[in-house]
Amino acid sequence: MTTPPTRSRENTRARLLDAAALVFAEVGLEGATVEVVCERAGFTRGAFYSNFESKDELFLTLAGTVAEARLGAVREQVTALAADGALERYEPVELVQRIMDASGDDRLSVMLMSEIRIRALRDQAFGAAFLAQEHEMVASISEIIREIVDSGAITLRMDPQLVARVLMIVWEGMAVRGAMAGEDDTQLHDTSGEAIGRLVQVLMA
Amino acid sequence: MTTPPTRSRENTRARLLDAAALVFAEVGLEGATVEVVCERAGFTRGAFYSNFESKDELFLTLAGTVAEARLGAVREQVTALAADGALERYEPVELVQRIMDASGDDRLSVMLMSEIRIRALRDQAFGAAFLAQEHEMVASISEIIREIVDSGAITLRMDPQLVARVLMIVWEGMAVRGAMAGEDDTQLHDTSGEAIGRLVQVLMA
Repeated sequence: MTTPPTRSRENTRARLLDAAALVFAEVGLEGATVEVVCERAGFTRGAFYSNFESKDELFLTLAGTVAEARLGAVREQVTALAADGALERYEPVELVQRIMDASGDDRLSVMLMSEIRIRALRDQAFGAAFLAQEHEMVASISEIIREIVDSGAITLRMDPQLVARVLMIVWEGMAVRGAMAGEDDTQLHDTSGEAIGRLVQVLMA
Repeated sequence: MTTPPTRSRENTRARLLDAAALVFAEVGLEGATVEVVCERAGFTRGAFYSNFESKDELFLTLAGTVAEARLGAVREQVTALAADGALERYEPVELVQRIMDASGDDRLSVMLMSEIRIRALRDQAFGAAFLAQEHEMVASISEIIREIVDSGAITLRMDPQLVARVLMIVWEGMAVRGAMAGEDDTQLHDTSGEAIGRLVQVLMA
């Protein structure tokens, strides 16, 4: 993109992403063709392709948007707790739970991530794009972890970058298994949160 | 099954599983229909359905067989190291690496596990079967970990059951990302092995 995004362009993208989420929820990734998403959003295929290169790019962006929103909520929670001087006040495991409470979990994003993972395994260019996006996500999580460590609330026995990666993988792994067991969104969140809490406790000095 | 498995029955199952692995490698899970697998194995659909309830059961069994073979190799390696008195001789991280060396990693099983994961998310009965199989796998890994702990080679800061679950999830998560990055089987193995080694080091007292 060489032209700066305009407000209406942003709006088109946002509406296409909203439509993509709805269509995905109804028919899964296979059924969510560009045509169906366009129809739902009320745009032409031309409007679609001036915003996204492909269906793959649309859904990778959607997954990134969902993850970024969750991470943003976590970041705000940490900032609020820090401003409150509360980071050092909680027992570490409870602190983790409080921070994680800010991040929603739901079956739909678990499904979306699992479908995207298959696409990323099948197509090397898409795999590279997925890994690049995830790399940024890990960097953001590391930043949050560093902020907590710098506050003096906890000390880690492992590099924040690897901690971020391990926590992200374990979080996802536990959420997937919760979703398979038919857990609802709240249970999903609790299952992952508990495992992460116990793991963080061990990762601390 | 109420009748005991006969030799020829075991043979039929094994040939169907071999054919399933070949067909999966060529056309993926979607394309690997019961018909195509039967044709490849040289069996009728009748022979198939007297051995497996469905395509889902066939591929879940295949994944279980692959995982069990890898776990068996790991178990033998631990037993050999224990008989040799070598469990206490290695630095823990090197010990983990030596044990993990017994377990092969490959893109195909990463693909298979990822495809099965989607099926398990979409279909609750299949999800339950998947989780039951995985539960046994985690129990077997815990057993191996307990054997190493009992030998006095290492002390853990976390319950062996949760350690087993976390290691399995991290191992799988790292292997998936390695496969996405286009790593070959040896690189895949090294990437996962290194992360597991560093994690185990932290999980130890």
